[in-house]
Amino acid sequence: MTSPSLDEFGLIARHLAPLATHAAARGLTDDVAVLAARDIGGSLVITADAIVAGVHFLADDPPEAVAQRVLRVNLSDLAAKGARPIGYVLTLALGHDQDEAWVARFAAGLAANQRQFSWSLLGGDTIGTPGPLTISVTALGEGPAGDAAPRNGARAGDRIWVTGSIGDGALGLAVCLGKAPSIASDLAEAAAARFRVPQPRVKLGRALMESGLVTASADISDGLVADLAHIAEESRLRGLIDGPFVPLSPAGQAAVAADAAWFPKLITGGDDYELVITGPASADAALRRIARDTGIPLTPIGWMEEGSGVTVYGEDGEPISLERAGYTHFQP
Amino acid sequence: MTSPSLDEFGLIARHLAPLATHAAARGLTDDVAVLAARDIGGSLVITADAIVAGVHFLADDPPEAVAQRVLRVNLSDLAAKGARPIGYVLTLALGHDQDEAWVARFAAGLAANQRQFSWSLLGGDTIGTPGPLTISVTALGEGPAGDAAPRNGARAGDRIWVTGSIGDGALGLAVCLGKAPSIASDLAEAAAARFRVPQPRVKLGRALMESGLVTASADISDGLVADLAHIAEESRLRGLIDGPFVPLSPAGQAAVAADAAWFPKLITGGDDYELVITGPASADAALRRIARDTGIPLTPIGWMEEGSGVTVYGEDGEPISLERAGYTHFQP
Repeated sequence: MTSPSLDEFGLIARHLAPLATHAAARGLTDDVAVLAARDIGGSLVITADAIVAGVHFLADDPPEAVAQRVLRVNLSDLAAKGARPIGYVLTLALGHDQDEAWVARFAAGLAANQRQFSWSLLGGDTIGTPGPLTISVTALGEGPAGDAAPRNGARAGDRIWVTGSIGDGALGLAVCLGKAPSIASDLAEAAAARFRVPQPRVKLGRALMESGLVTASADISDGLVADLAHIAEESRLRGLIDGPFVPLSPAGQAAVAADAAWFPKLITGGDDYELVITGPASADAALRRIARDTGIPLTPIGWMEEGSGVTVYGEDGEPISLERAGYTHFQP
Repeated sequence: MTSPSLDEFGLIARHLAPLATHAAARGLTDDVAVLAARDIGGSLVITADAIVAGVHFLADDPPEAVAQRVLRVNLSDLAAKGARPIGYVLTLALGHDQDEAWVARFAAGLAANQRQFSWSLLGGDTIGTPGPLTISVTALGEGPAGDAAPRNGARAGDRIWVTGSIGDGALGLAVCLGKAPSIASDLAEAAAARFRVPQPRVKLGRALMESGLVTASADISDGLVADLAHIAEESRLRGLIDGPFVPLSPAGQAAVAADAAWFPKLITGGDDYELVITGPASADAALRRIARDTGIPLTPIGWMEEGSGVTVYGEDGEPISLERAGYTHFQP
């Protein structure tokens, strides 16, 4: 009942088998991939994401961009744990609208991503569905021996840092939907591009975790406040953010200048795929050095203390009301 | 854009987190699972299957049975490589018809499977879809060091063996669809039960691979002839099956007695989840001993020789015409 049609065999042979560059994938000629223990190193970091056309992306998005997005979202989870990407397992439920040309373009996006991040398709399953295109990726990475920075390792007094800039995910989505504030078109386009093709912090994540200075780490997929709230909850602490210190891109700065109500949206909006980490104050100089060496900004935005939830202070020193969550103290 | 609703957080916390029994899963509180290298042993065997309601199972099948089926299909792939099940990553795209009661029953099926096969949920993703329920599982197992029996290792002169009995998958599906030949109702029900809840040969598969006597191995998901054809193709050999030696269950024997045209259907029908293996004639006694020790029949049904494709000989010594493939010499 689950046997693929000859056409699916053909699609796999023509478009997916060439992506199985890792020896473990056996060229997709077997039902399994076999990864030697020596390829894994200290630990195997495993993460998964599934996306549905019309829910998580638009059905007419370019297939190359859909491929890049689903892999990059998973790479961001590996980055948060300092893992080197090894490979991914792909299950593809193709809808009526996905013909061979679509699969070819999707595979081209996978191939471009594999070249940039030096990893490989390992296996998977390709089936047809009467419903919308549904893509599921399980990503495997080689992590440090011992525990990669977990969510529950933050300590009271730790500094909170973020990589890159915050809010372009939410702003870029608003640009795509025609709901952004009035900002220059080149800035709007830059935010939209960041939304469409997330930039997972794989190298910086590895350098940060290898330093041994990070106590907790998460990637920012649900929004800075929500992902910090997960760290706070699991660490049984409270996160305090100094709003004016949160790094915004030129597009984000322009959005807030045009409409101050956009600041809470940027820090709660999701899809940034930056990292939020915590580390002791004694690590400040070393963390700044890592950021300089990798060329990606790392900005201290607050600290952890006893308590629960997340509070964001504005320029006036008063807590900012966060509309999205409906609470000043956001709790997941 | 991919942030789960609070309801999905709740479903995960109430029904799936209790299944994350392996320490690597971190109780599903993190975005990742982290498997220590020492947990992996010789190699990590990876396989995946995705199923869609209305295509691979009926939308109103009992959720417990759907859970069992999707895990057992993956366990069968691990069994074919002699891998010990470690855990699985589950992505669940829930349709409009799957409410919390459905998820609770599905999780009960996962839990029963985990107890029987001593493995754990490791992580995943739970999302909503406007389309049909879609389930994707990536299964991880600890394999032997070096190469688990691949599909391309068969040698000319090797004996072909199958575990258990062949054809109850196809016959059971026919019973479910009301298309089976006239056989006793208890036999029909036994075949249907085997179709609904496959019996992956995990222990026997491990014992066979640990023996070092198996040259090629596959599980029978697409049908005995098709899965042997994969071994033949990858090994650049021809598979010869002595039809009268293929072991049938009492239900299968009754079906063929009622209608001889059912024999080709049983050996091409799929969903048996038995194993087909090859090994040198010198291994006969040792393989029979392993079968006796594990209590599961292992039957020699033919041999590999120079050539290509698969030929099945009938009682009269003439090749049987295999309708499904349209060729006497089936080639995938």
